[in-house]
Amino acid sequence: MHVLILGAAGMIGRKLTARLVADGNVGGRGIDRLTLADVVAPPEPAGAAGTAEGVVADLAVPGAAERLVDDRPDLIFQLAAVVSGEAEADFDKGYRVNLDGTRALLDAIRAAGGYRPRLVFTSSIAVYGPPMTDPIPEDFQEAPLTSYGTQKAIGELLLADYTRRGFVDGVGLRLPTICIRPGRPNKAASGFFSSILREPLVGREAVLPVPETVRHWHASPRAAVGFLVRAAALDGQDVGPRRTLSMPGLSATVGEQIEALRRAAGDRAVRLIRREPDESVMRIVETWAPALDATRAMRLGFTAETSFDEIIRVHIEDELGGSP
Amino acid sequence: MHVLILGAAGMIGRKLTARLVADGNVGGRGIDRLTLADVVAPPEPAGAAGTAEGVVADLAVPGAAERLVDDRPDLIFQLAAVVSGEAEADFDKGYRVNLDGTRALLDAIRAAGGYRPRLVFTSSIAVYGPPMTDPIPEDFQEAPLTSYGTQKAIGELLLADYTRRGFVDGVGLRLPTICIRPGRPNKAASGFFSSILREPLVGREAVLPVPETVRHWHASPRAAVGFLVRAAALDGQDVGPRRTLSMPGLSATVGEQIEALRRAAGDRAVRLIRREPDESVMRIVETWAPALDATRAMRLGFTAETSFDEIIRVHIEDELGGSP
Repeated sequence: MHVLILGAAGMIGRKLTARLVADGNVGGRGIDRLTLADVVAPPEPAGAAGTAEGVVADLAVPGAAERLVDDRPDLIFQLAAVVSGEAEADFDKGYRVNLDGTRALLDAIRAAGGYRPRLVFTSSIAVYGPPMTDPIPEDFQEAPLTSYGTQKAIGELLLADYTRRGFVDGVGLRLPTICIRPGRPNKAASGFFSSILREPLVGREAVLPVPETVRHWHASPRAAVGFLVRAAALDGQDVGPRRTLSMPGLSATVGEQIEALRRAAGDRAVRLIRREPDESVMRIVETWAPALDATRAMRLGFTAETSFDEIIRVHIEDELGGSP
Repeated sequence: MHVLILGAAGMIGRKLTARLVADGNVGGRGIDRLTLADVVAPPEPAGAAGTAEGVVADLAVPGAAERLVDDRPDLIFQLAAVVSGEAEADFDKGYRVNLDGTRALLDAIRAAGGYRPRLVFTSSIAVYGPPMTDPIPEDFQEAPLTSYGTQKAIGELLLADYTRRGFVDGVGLRLPTICIRPGRPNKAASGFFSSILREPLVGREAVLPVPETVRHWHASPRAAVGFLVRAAALDGQDVGPRRTLSMPGLSATVGEQIEALRRAAGDRAVRLIRREPDESVMRIVETWAPALDATRAMRLGFTAETSFDEIIRVHIEDELGGSP
C-alpha cells in the first residue's frame, strides 16, 4: 500500500518513517510506496522496500493538499503542526497550519471522491483546560486555554464529522507530552520536560522553568510511534463515532522525573538542572492535564511506559547507543 | 450605543429587534443606533429611538464582515446560521455559513484593532451527542453527531480563544430547541416540536415524525430573546474562560407536550396531530440531549419556562393575540 506522512521531517515523522521502513508493513499490509511530505525536505529513508519519495509542501497553501492526495494514498499520517509555544506567539501561523492545513487535507480527500483512506490525526492533551478532574475522562469537555489546544480540538471535531459523513476513515490520537524528545529544543512550551533529562544525561546543563510539583502526562517517542502504527491498523468499527482516543501515558511530577534521572545517571547529572522560574511557561503548563483516562485506547491495544526509569532507558537505547 | 444584529431577518432576530426597540437600552445603556444585517433584507423596525438601518450581507463573502464591523458596533449578536437539517443536507453551505461566516466575523473584529466589542454567539444543544448523561453537565465533551452541531462546537472554541487573546469579548449561549416557533416551518429537524402545537392551536393538521417518548430540552422564543439580552449585559469577568453557557429550559417528552396542548385547546386540537414516522428526522433527533445542567447560567440570571402550559401561553400571547 501507499503511505503518506505529513510532517515527515519532524521528530516523530522521522521516527515513524524509520519504523515503517523497518517493518515493511502496517497491520500486515505491505508498504510498496512511502511519500514523505513536510515544509522542509524530509531526509531520504535508507532501506525502504518499495519507492520512497520526499515532497516539500505546505498543506495550507491552496492546491497543495489536492496534489498530495492526487495519487490516493491508502494511509495518511497527519503529523504536520505548529507547536504550542509557537501557536501562542504567532496567532495567524498557528491557525493557518493547525486549522486551515488540516481542513484543507480533509477537503482534498473529500473532493477526490470515491476514496476513503485511513487518516491518523495527532491531537494533544492540550485540548483540555482547567478546572479539570484527575484523570480526565474521555467524555470531558475540550476547553483548552491555548490556541494550539483550540486548533487541535477543532481538528478532532472536523475529523469526526468528515468520518461520520463517509469522506474519510479518521482516527485521532490525543498524545501525551512526548518525553524524552531528542535533538534540539523546539518552541513547544513543554520542551523542558525533555531537556531536564536529555541534557544532564550527556553532561550538559538544562533549565527548569517550573516547580518540581508540576505533574504531567508523558510517553516516549518510541511509544508515540507505536500509537501511530496501532491507529493505522485499527478496525474503524471498534473506534465508534468518537474518533479521537486519549493515549496512555505515565503521570509523573517533575520531581519524580528528576529522581529517575538520579537513579540512571547520579547526583552529578541532577546538579546540572538549573532552576530558572519562567512565568510565561508556567502559565501555559498549568493549563495542561496531569493525567488522562486512556481505558478505551488500552482496550484497543495502545500501550505506553509505566515508569520514568523506563522512559529514560528507551532514550538511552534509541538515542545514546545504549549507555548514557 | 451601536448594536449590530447578524441574522436579523430570522425568527429570533426579528423578535430580538422588537425587544431592543421596545426597551431602548441594553443593561441600562441607551441604544442610539441599530444595524440589522441578514442575507435577505430584514424588515424595518417601527419606533426605534435612534437610527435603524438594514444591511443585506453574507458574512462568508470576503470583505463582508470587515464592512459590518467598520463602524465598530459596541454590541454584536451573531444569530446568522444555517439550521441543522439544511447543514446536514448541504455540507458545503453549512460549513461556509456556520463556520467560515463566524470565523470571518471574529477575524474582522480582530483586524479592526483596539476594538473589543461584546459578541453574543448562539450555539446549540446540538453540540452534544450520545452516549450522554441526563442532564448533561457543562464540562461534558462536545461530540456532536451532526454537521450543524460540529460547526457550533467549533464556534464555541473559536469564541473562547479569540476572547482569551483579547480580540473580542465573547459570550456564547447553548440554546435549547426553541418552541413554539411561529410562522412557516424551516429546515430544522426539530421543527415538529413546534408544529405539533402551533398548527393544531389554529385548527390545522400537523405531522409527528417521532415517537411520543422522545424527550428534549425546550424554551420559548420569548425566553430565547431574554437569554440574548441577558448575555449582552453580563460582566465578562463573571463568565470566566469557558465563554459558552448552557441555557436553562424545560425537559419534556413529546407526550407531555401533547397533554399540555390538550389542556390548552382540547381533544379536537390533539386529534389534528398525524403520526408519520420519519427515520431521517429520528436519526438526527435521537442524537440530541434530553436536558442540560444550566446551573451556571441560572446563577447568572438566565431564566426559562418551567412547564409546557407556560410555553403554550407565551405563544398564545405573543403570536395569537392572547387567545387560541
